[in-house]
Amino acid sequence: MIVVDYSPGILQYIPFFYVIWSDDLLSASEISVIQKTINDDTHLSENEKEQLLEWLDRNNPPPEDEFKNWKQTISNSKIKLIESDTYPLTSLSQRLGNTYCGECEFNDYLKNIELNLGIQPNHYNHLFDVEVVHEKTSKQYDARVLDALLKGQHTASVDSFRDFLNQDVFNGQVLRNKEDYRNRVLKQVSLLGKHGYGAYAYPSEYGGKGNMPAYGAIFEHLMFVDGSLAVKFGVQFGLFGGSIQKLGTKRHHDLYLEDAGTAELLGCFAMTETGHGSNVRGIRTTATYDRETDEIVIHTPGKNDNKEYIGNALHSKIATVFAQLIVDGKNEGVHAILVPLRNEKHEVFDGITIEDNGYKIGLNGVDNGKIWFNQVRVPRANLLDKYGSITDKGEYSSPIKNPNKRFFTMLGTLVGGRICVARGALGGAKMALAIAVKHALNRRQFNDNVKIQEDLIMDYPTHQVRLTPAIASAYVYHVTLEEMMQSYSDESQTDKREIETQVAGLKSIITWFGNSTIQECREACGGKGYLLENLIGDSKGDVDIFTTFEGDNTVLLQLAAKGVLSDFKAEFNSAGFASVLKLLRTQLSDRWNTLNPVYANKVDADHLYNPKFHKHAFQYRTRRLTYTLAMRIRNYIKKGIPAYQAFLKVQTHLIALGKAYSVELAYNTYSNFCESIQDEEYKSLLEKLGTLYALDEINSEARWYLEQGYIGSTKSKAIRQRVERLCTELRPHIEVLVDGFGIPKHCMSAPIAQ
Amino acid sequence: MIVVDYSPGILQYIPFFYVIWSDDLLSASEISVIQKTINDDTHLSENEKEQLLEWLDRNNPPPEDEFKNWKQTISNSKIKLIESDTYPLTSLSQRLGNTYCGECEFNDYLKNIELNLGIQPNHYNHLFDVEVVHEKTSKQYDARVLDALLKGQHTASVDSFRDFLNQDVFNGQVLRNKEDYRNRVLKQVSLLGKHGYGAYAYPSEYGGKGNMPAYGAIFEHLMFVDGSLAVKFGVQFGLFGGSIQKLGTKRHHDLYLEDAGTAELLGCFAMTETGHGSNVRGIRTTATYDRETDEIVIHTPGKNDNKEYIGNALHSKIATVFAQLIVDGKNEGVHAILVPLRNEKHEVFDGITIEDNGYKIGLNGVDNGKIWFNQVRVPRANLLDKYGSITDKGEYSSPIKNPNKRFFTMLGTLVGGRICVARGALGGAKMALAIAVKHALNRRQFNDNVKIQEDLIMDYPTHQVRLTPAIASAYVYHVTLEEMMQSYSDESQTDKREIETQVAGLKSIITWFGNSTIQECREACGGKGYLLENLIGDSKGDVDIFTTFEGDNTVLLQLAAKGVLSDFKAEFNSAGFASVLKLLRTQLSDRWNTLNPVYANKVDADHLYNPKFHKHAFQYRTRRLTYTLAMRIRNYIKKGIPAYQAFLKVQTHLIALGKAYSVELAYNTYSNFCESIQDEEYKSLLEKLGTLYALDEINSEARWYLEQGYIGSTKSKAIRQRVERLCTELRPHIEVLVDGFGIPKHCMSAPIAQ
Repeated sequence: MIVVDYSPGILQYIPFFYVIWSDDLLSASEISVIQKTINDDTHLSENEKEQLLEWLDRNNPPPEDEFKNWKQTISNSKIKLIESDTYPLTSLSQRLGNTYCGECEFNDYLKNIELNLGIQPNHYNHLFDVEVVHEKTSKQYDARVLDALLKGQHTASVDSFRDFLNQDVFNGQVLRNKEDYRNRVLKQVSLLGKHGYGAYAYPSEYGGKGNMPAYGAIFEHLMFVDGSLAVKFGVQFGLFGGSIQKLGTKRHHDLYLEDAGTAELLGCFAMTETGHGSNVRGIRTTATYDRETDEIVIHTPGKNDNKEYIGNALHSKIATVFAQLIVDGKNEGVHAILVPLRNEKHEVFDGITIEDNGYKIGLNGVDNGKIWFNQVRVPRANLLDKYGSITDKGEYSSPIKNPNKRFFTMLGTLVGGRICVARGALGGAKMALAIAVKHALNRRQFNDNVKIQEDLIMDYPTHQVRLTPAIASAYVYHVTLEEMMQSYSDESQTDKREIETQVAGLKSIITWFGNSTIQECREACGGKGYLLENLIGDSKGDVDIFTTFEGDNTVLLQLAAKGVLSDFKAEFNSAGFASVLKLLRTQLSDRWNTLNPVYANKVDADHLYNPKFHKHAFQYRTRRLTYTLAMRIRNYIKKGIPAYQAFLKVQTHLIALGKAYSVELAYNTYSNFCESIQDEEYKSLLEKLGTLYALDEINSEARWYLEQGYIGSTKSKAIRQRVERLCTELRPHIEVLVDGFGIPKHCMSAPIAQ
Repeated sequence: MIVVDYSPGILQYIPFFYVIWSDDLLSASEISVIQKTINDDTHLSENEKEQLLEWLDRNNPPPEDEFKNWKQTISNSKIKLIESDTYPLTSLSQRLGNTYCGECEFNDYLKNIELNLGIQPNHYNHLFDVEVVHEKTSKQYDARVLDALLKGQHTASVDSFRDFLNQDVFNGQVLRNKEDYRNRVLKQVSLLGKHGYGAYAYPSEYGGKGNMPAYGAIFEHLMFVDGSLAVKFGVQFGLFGGSIQKLGTKRHHDLYLEDAGTAELLGCFAMTETGHGSNVRGIRTTATYDRETDEIVIHTPGKNDNKEYIGNALHSKIATVFAQLIVDGKNEGVHAILVPLRNEKHEVFDGITIEDNGYKIGLNGVDNGKIWFNQVRVPRANLLDKYGSITDKGEYSSPIKNPNKRFFTMLGTLVGGRICVARGALGGAKMALAIAVKHALNRRQFNDNVKIQEDLIMDYPTHQVRLTPAIASAYVYHVTLEEMMQSYSDESQTDKREIETQVAGLKSIITWFGNSTIQECREACGGKGYLLENLIGDSKGDVDIFTTFEGDNTVLLQLAAKGVLSDFKAEFNSAGFASVLKLLRTQLSDRWNTLNPVYANKVDADHLYNPKFHKHAFQYRTRRLTYTLAMRIRNYIKKGIPAYQAFLKVQTHLIALGKAYSVELAYNTYSNFCESIQDEEYKSLLEKLGTLYALDEINSEARWYLEQGYIGSTKSKAIRQRVERLCTELRPHIEVLVDGFGIPKHCMSAPIAQ
């Protein structure tokens, strides 16, 4: 048996030293926190201080016998580690002092160390041979506060909508037959329309609230009910209704908008063709103006020119059809025309053929179909003519003279839909994360030989690393998309080009994030995640296509990258490509000079957790990729290679830039949001999520940063370790974090999440 | 107009120089190939040689005017580039010479350059303003030869099985209702059983062919028909029949094996419980021997102790139930017992409760269910007693004294199933790749302004990089799994520990590969990939769970890594952990010395394409990860942290090692296979696939290699570029490569693949 010969002062520090030396991650700055505290601690004698400081030397760690002695001292004490104590390790130290020396007060200096170093019971509880009083979740934070922060200005709309969703018609149900499923979803959409949710983004004259941002929040909530519902809702109110609102003029608004918003008039958005998805400008459906009858003739010329994958095609009475508008034999480019599809009895009009697209991986509650037009005539008034009209004299006229600009202005109205698609993918990811976390807090598997109970799978490091960075990303993307929707809806900003570039990139990275997160959650729930009753499966099938529709991600990222390239041109007040490059190069080389080897290998926590480091790293990457991209394109063009071919050759580079730009944008937006939070405690939690997001992203691009010499090997390893450590630090709060998503209880019906 | 003032000798080289300087990838060694050829070329005068060599200086490239002159010279000639020429660039050169100088012979020196540098028309066809006679696919290789190489010894079995699959009952059909779907799959399984395919791996006495490797190939082919069929087939013949074959003795074989093989007797494999999936040793179902009645009593003790997710549960008459065997009050560990479930009329026996698991993400043609036992009695003879029996005296007896070893020996019989699961995931990936490639060779989108036709999406670099490395991996994994199955089936090898470790790792990386490949193919086919009629969707849903069943990937990779650790112990003739570490360290530091900065930045093609480089890189990674892992564990253990906790702390490290080990194993196995190929032309194609696999894997771990200083920045970038370039080089053969998978035409019914 060991004789305890430690003095009371030293005794109290033993649990801390034991924990510190069991973990190899302590950095110089963290050690200095401890040194400082020891020097200040009035409970300690000079001799005790000297002894403790000696044990802090990283180059000369305490001898192993000492280490074992500490361990035994703790074990022999038979004290308990109570995780729900506010400062568990300091309280343990106090109990240790009490056991061996009697009356020992709570030491605020130790508390200071525990707080500053963020030492959590789950870091060290396995180290002690003492009874551990576990807690699954810390009570430090309240999920309702997080939820309120995420709801922001939409609290009233969101809260009442959550209540509204609490009715039988929205309860989960497995409907395998597509007709049954579609009918149910149609009923849900009509109900939402009747209660004003469809018209949320329309002007009040047409039954709306003029509140596009709240519409976005509502859209995301529908993902908690059913992906098919969200998509059919988006098609009816966002795409079809939205096309009338944004591309039509007062006449169209008066005739159709209110009925579109209540779902009295069901419509579809017929843009994509079998042969033309991403290349919208190349669609082949024609809309030829016939001066004699003052009509427009809609026609599908060839085999692959039918409209394809049109949502709501089987239920709709009318369609917004995109076609090449031909007036007096001249092609005026792509325009949208309202074309009635069916009569009151729901019979398809002559000249129109509609076919069901059949079963899909997901979204089987949405009636997608193909549509053919054979010389179908509609009145001239059916042209949605905000950006291009046919005068009474039968002449084409447009407020935007440049056909290229006109085309992109019309397509710009899709940006709101892209934000919603990203919100939808985010909603799917949140739901899957909440289910996976709750399962991991119930499910146990494997144990130490000495323990009776198996371990919670949430306490496995691999499991923490699987789920926690995705939770951090969900917070970051939520805040970013809210901000994007605010800018997009800001009528005072007329030039939407910047937001288009931003949304193109964000839609891509967030829908991919949604898919990979849902997949990770499926696997993290094992076989249980594979059962449809546990709600991850349908979400997986539904969100899958979000990477493709409203713009294929690969194509959108190239669009974003091209936007960045031209942004730079604008930024430097374009005196031509060459001078832009020159400026970019100067900027980069200036920055480069600040990157010395010390910086490239700075690994202390203060630095790695500093938003300045993250922002610098992201900005450096975006700038550098832009510069090298511009250089490569210039070189090709100098050699006489056509621009189209030059862009083909740098496709993978474009995609890397598009991603880098989007990640930087998301992080900066989130950082600004964090700065606005008043409550310091919640602010620090949300900042920690931002730090995890940033380090996880830098970690995933570490190879590139290493190649550039921006970080060295040591820093690269330190970043990886910090990601793991942050996940562990957030472990006590993980349930509160997913509860903070605010998913209504009545939507969380998965048996494994109970 | 430009006056051509090039001499005939120089003229011929112009297309080559134009192509070379348009591309920045040429390495020193490639330039030296050209230099050598020029020096040797007897068609050239000394002056011409001098001029050409001057244009080859990388530090002093030809002036831009010269470059433009070359381009104009080619354009003005109006010659055609004919991609189907055997040597298209040399032929183009010849035509150029003919145009300007009359009679010009085919230059074998130029042909030599074209061959050595692997310059392909799709590298450069966009560079010329000349008419290009396109070819979608090169005719250089024959898919049947590739197929024959992959079929190997099983040609006869596979060919006849492919014919067998060509009947209505196996045609694709969307069945959404699970009962209808299950009935159809049951019919298919019975038919396969009746024709001897179920018994393929059983001994001939029981209707089989004793050919487990051919069984594996058959299993993979079922994935081309339907994932549900493959899985139900595997449950009936592999798991249920296999448990009788491998865990039972002659009595059981005589009674059950033939009927199991014909599917006359339907059975299931009841191992997993709701509470225990990965931790099989912790299952709680009990099998208590009752000496009085000489029976075994099967019982489900608690709420989560029911058998869960048992395939074939609703159709089976009998189950192999895994339970804790208790004899005379002593728990002898997990054993398997045959328990009849239903009578002739298909009524469930008293004491047994079976419930449907309901709908899943995929595999809805498989009847998974939960099973509860309430004191169910079976005769002692029902114990599958190869590794543990109860004697007539009612005493427990086993040929394997160590309970730990006994448990793992029993579980070792699952290894064959794991190989099949990996084969299944591979089959799903092959199918998706074949569909995506055929679609990409039909689908066009976007074009240059001057061209009428849009580009094939297969000609987009991003598309090539998405699909080509996966095709290479499919070849590598096919060969590897064939080899694994051969070793596993080799009865002369009694110690199966090594193959267990190997298969644990390979099952994980290959099932993940299957999932990510199918997802990539889905996205590469856009919305069309989302329609079930195009066959990628069901495959995606079915293969998903392959990462979980027959061993969760995360758990299996840890198992593999632990196997590697103990392998090393064995390898060094274990004089204890410390000496192992010492040896490992020496080995690594020896190797380390060979890694000088020159090696770390060697970027010429000879080096990057050399299998020696790949093998060294893979071996270095496995060894280094093993060594650092062992060091970390040792440090924890020295500090008194229990082994279980120490392994928890290094979980992510274990997983990295498990993957690295598996990739190395796959590459080495494939390399050996390539060496055995006789035909040099096919050998070089298959070697190129191996090179792409290796570089793609090193590329994906480049961050780690950079951290280690094993590669430098320049090399890291060169590797990434080489991956892209190899994809482009393989572009002409991509259709032949997917046809080489040998997927029968009657299985490839996806409309987009026609």
